[in-house]
Amino acid sequence: MSYLLNTWYLAAWASEIETGKLFHRRLLDLAVVLFRKKDGTPVALQDRCPHRFAPLHMGKLLDDVVQCPYHGLRFDSGGRCVLNPHGPIPSAARVRPFPVVERYSAVWIWMGDPARADPELIVPFDFMVPEQWYVGTGHLLIHANYELETDNILDLSHIEFLHPLFASEAVRAAQVQSVQDGETVWCKRFMVRDDPPDFIRVGFQIPPGELVDRWLDVRWNAPATMALYAGGVTSGRPRESGLVVQQAHVFTPQNATTTHYFYAISFPRTLGEEGARRAQESVATLRAPFELEDKPIVEAVARNMGDASFWDLKPLLLQMDTAAVLARRILAKKIEAERAAAAGA
Amino acid sequence: MSYLLNTWYLAAWASEIETGKLFHRRLLDLAVVLFRKKDGTPVALQDRCPHRFAPLHMGKLLDDVVQCPYHGLRFDSGGRCVLNPHGPIPSAARVRPFPVVERYSAVWIWMGDPARADPELIVPFDFMVPEQWYVGTGHLLIHANYELETDNILDLSHIEFLHPLFASEAVRAAQVQSVQDGETVWCKRFMVRDDPPDFIRVGFQIPPGELVDRWLDVRWNAPATMALYAGGVTSGRPRESGLVVQQAHVFTPQNATTTHYFYAISFPRTLGEEGARRAQESVATLRAPFELEDKPIVEAVARNMGDASFWDLKPLLLQMDTAAVLARRILAKKIEAERAAAAGA
Amino acid sequence: MSYLLNTWYLAAWASEIETGKLFHRRLLDLAVVLFRKKDGTPVALQDRCPHRFAPLHMGKLLDDVVQCPYHGLRFDSGGRCVLNPHGPIPSAARVRPFPVVERYSAVWIWMGDPARADPELIVPFDFMVPEQWYVGTGHLLIHANYELETDNILDLSHIEFLHPLFASEAVRAAQVQSVQDGETVWCKRFMVRDDPPDFIRVGFQIPPGELVDRWLDVRWNAPATMALYAGGVTSGRPRESGLVVQQAHVFTPQNATTTHYFYAISFPRTLGEEGARRAQESVATLRAPFELEDKPIVEAVARNMGDASFWDLKPLLLQMDTAAVLARRILAKKIEAERAAAAGA
Repeated sequence: MSYLLNTWYLAAWASEIETGKLFHRRLLDLAVVLFRKKDGTPVALQDRCPHRFAPLHMGKLLDDVVQCPYHGLRFDSGGRCVLNPHGPIPSAARVRPFPVVERYSAVWIWMGDPARADPELIVPFDFMVPEQWYVGTGHLLIHANYELETDNILDLSHIEFLHPLFASEAVRAAQVQSVQDGETVWCKRFMVRDDPPDFIRVGFQIPPGELVDRWLDVRWNAPATMALYAGGVTSGRPRESGLVVQQAHVFTPQNATTTHYFYAISFPRTLGEEGARRAQESVATLRAPFELEDKPIVEAVARNMGDASFWDLKPLLLQMDTAAVLARRILAKKIEAERAAAAGA
Repeated sequence: MSYLLNTWYLAAWASEIETGKLFHRRLLDLAVVLFRKKDGTPVALQDRCPHRFAPLHMGKLLDDVVQCPYHGLRFDSGGRCVLNPHGPIPSAARVRPFPVVERYSAVWIWMGDPARADPELIVPFDFMVPEQWYVGTGHLLIHANYELETDNILDLSHIEFLHPLFASEAVRAAQVQSVQDGETVWCKRFMVRDDPPDFIRVGFQIPPGELVDRWLDVRWNAPATMALYAGGVTSGRPRESGLVVQQAHVFTPQNATTTHYFYAISFPRTLGEEGARRAQESVATLRAPFELEDKPIVEAVARNMGDASFWDLKPLLLQMDTAAVLARRILAKKIEAERAAAAGA
Repeated sequence: MSYLLNTWYLAAWASEIETGKLFHRRLLDLAVVLFRKKDGTPVALQDRCPHRFAPLHMGKLLDDVVQCPYHGLRFDSGGRCVLNPHGPIPSAARVRPFPVVERYSAVWIWMGDPARADPELIVPFDFMVPEQWYVGTGHLLIHANYELETDNILDLSHIEFLHPLFASEAVRAAQVQSVQDGETVWCKRFMVRDDPPDFIRVGFQIPPGELVDRWLDVRWNAPATMALYAGGVTSGRPRESGLVVQQAHVFTPQNATTTHYFYAISFPRTLGEEGARRAQESVATLRAPFELEDKPIVEAVARNMGDASFWDLKPLLLQMDTAAVLARRILAKKIEAERAAAAGA
């Protein structure tokens, strides 16, 4: 399994990495330990002591330094050994550090060439800037390859069948636009003159009796980083006068068959406590369908595919798969380019 | 692992496939969904939507049509797509159908070339025709290769050691005849002038004090389809005047290392309610030794064999293995013939 | 995975093999059944009937003979078939016997060429001769390769970090001598003028206020057979006047990734009941750090190494690794010599 390496992966929600604690997670089939320095800056190191390969996360965090649980070697936030309790520090005593950046309520990790780890390459999630938004966040572990999750989010026509409580047949019958813009893919669904269920109406503050123009716009960027804009307005009025609820759906491979699912929903800080409450409540509400409806089907798809690759199984592609196929092709091309560059180097 | 393909496998007991429900089972390492049409006819399809590989059994049965759980495509009993809720139906939108026949209280599936699926090739189990017999049925999942189960049933000399409650040493000391008749193998044990335990005596309605002539005749057909005729008569009288209890022991591979064990016992409908009661009680009684005595030993044998093949381990064959070896050779020859035909085609 | 074959492995503590019972354990990836003859002599056979591969340990022990659970074949302590209830005994009806010797409170097994199984090659553990010592024994199953356990015991500098209750920093700061003597490796730690925790002081019967000279000497022999001598004396006095507590740490691979950990601690029979009590109490006390501190870290190391070999991962070796590296090299050389001899034969 080849992963795209020179890209930012969401490693953890910012809130998962607590001050004074060692947090660990397997990412791209590598063990990673994460922690915060005293000044709050996040740090990521390979979770394996170079001496005898003990996981550092089982050790201790002493200020900005990690102590190995087995023989007490200490490493700083750059992975340099700063103490060998048993003698001089060998020059080779280093743990691999990974560039990390805290942004958009998350900690992003770069697992490729550190020299190319430009924070400006992080996919923007303006609606998760914590100074301006209350961001409700969640995490699920999915037993399926991460690209199956890209497929899931980029084609929301499944909502009618998989999430009966969340949507009417309007979603499926929507006008759909799948567009590639550089290396970004958009799948935009537009539902005109819809008569949606009450809770959707309430969400967009549209009184009973009035028809609704709704949209579900998904933005994808490699590797599997998606934003979902769910908007609604009284039918006929301009979109700009409507309300939009903004979600993140970001997937990081634990390995080829297991995926970290990071999801979030945002409400503006201008709403005050009401916004904080809605962020918490909404993210808790979202978890149910993600965990009880999407996860089982995506995992069943993975089991049904076995060891075969997606393309080898010759999927019957339909029009609504356009965006997901664009995304799969961009990702494949980028991975291939990395391989070719590595071979040429 | 190669399976014999052009043959009928027992897929499920007829009673397992309930009207209006989707039933699924893994057979020969393929996911299969089974259901009944409104007219009761059983249907089997590959349990994988051709679009994005979701298992159809997680969807809905709408009259004679299956709706995929993920995006709502519908397939009829022939595997043809009859509805694509998202647009026109692509001509490639088909699920693989499997020929199935309901006969002898079971649903039989043909996983090879459909053109060759002749129902007359189903191994006859006259004593399971539901119009004439009460048939008690059971199912166990065995973590062993199915041929180890053929070995088990074709050599009942193990009864004395593995099922102490069920048999005296008479079974082991019986006269044994192992015969190949075309592609059918018989292993017939005959015990003359036996003084069996009371419950066996009662089963054959032979009063205390009288000696018994007993027999245990097992008929095997490929792939692993066996009938067991257990008979008894007052010693010296003709067999025809005795009683016979008839069982089925049919094995279908789930995969190379796991096997569906279908067992049954029949009593004639002429016995009325008494026959129905005995079928139910007997099949429940049989389960205990199958589950608690045969299953553990056969699974332990499988673990002890590891990944090695039966022949590579050079089993020490004894006379009582004659029938099982005949069966293994017939099956191997039939699989080899299929391979050769496929290579030549 | 290649194991050293022509060597004695600890198969079980003598007390584990009870009279009249069949004991079984997987060793070097082979199933082994162990029992005692009526005269108490231990016996080891491959735990697999040559007929149809049932595990013999599921059968019966009848005096000095094992009866297979499946078809009742009987094998004597030399592995010869002595009864085939179904006919004559084929000359090939043999189970592989393994040489075993009961010595030092343990049963040792030889899994290589039986002609070379010289009991004098058993690594001496004088302090486990049951006539002179009370020996408390224990067993743990470790999910890691056995050489990681050699590493663990041969470098006790980990005590400070992994077993905070058991040792002060004195252990780490000790004078360390790593010596190879023939095919024996010693790692000797000497702590001069130590002020140890009370329970250590009590163990060595040194009154409060007095400084202690302590030592921890570990002796290794292939494959992974270690003795630990933990001694202490009032500082400045000769070692011979001090007390020594003697432990065994012996590891036998179940397979490449799972290891039997046999540990023991001895007290002289001259102590009478007090010695018996201390052996029992001490071995129970030892279990806690072995199970709750060493086992988790060694297993985490194994997981962190994945399928890679120790040397391929390029461990950062420190001075305290000298003894463990000597041991790894001796073992590798011995295995290589066996391979070469086998290839030349």
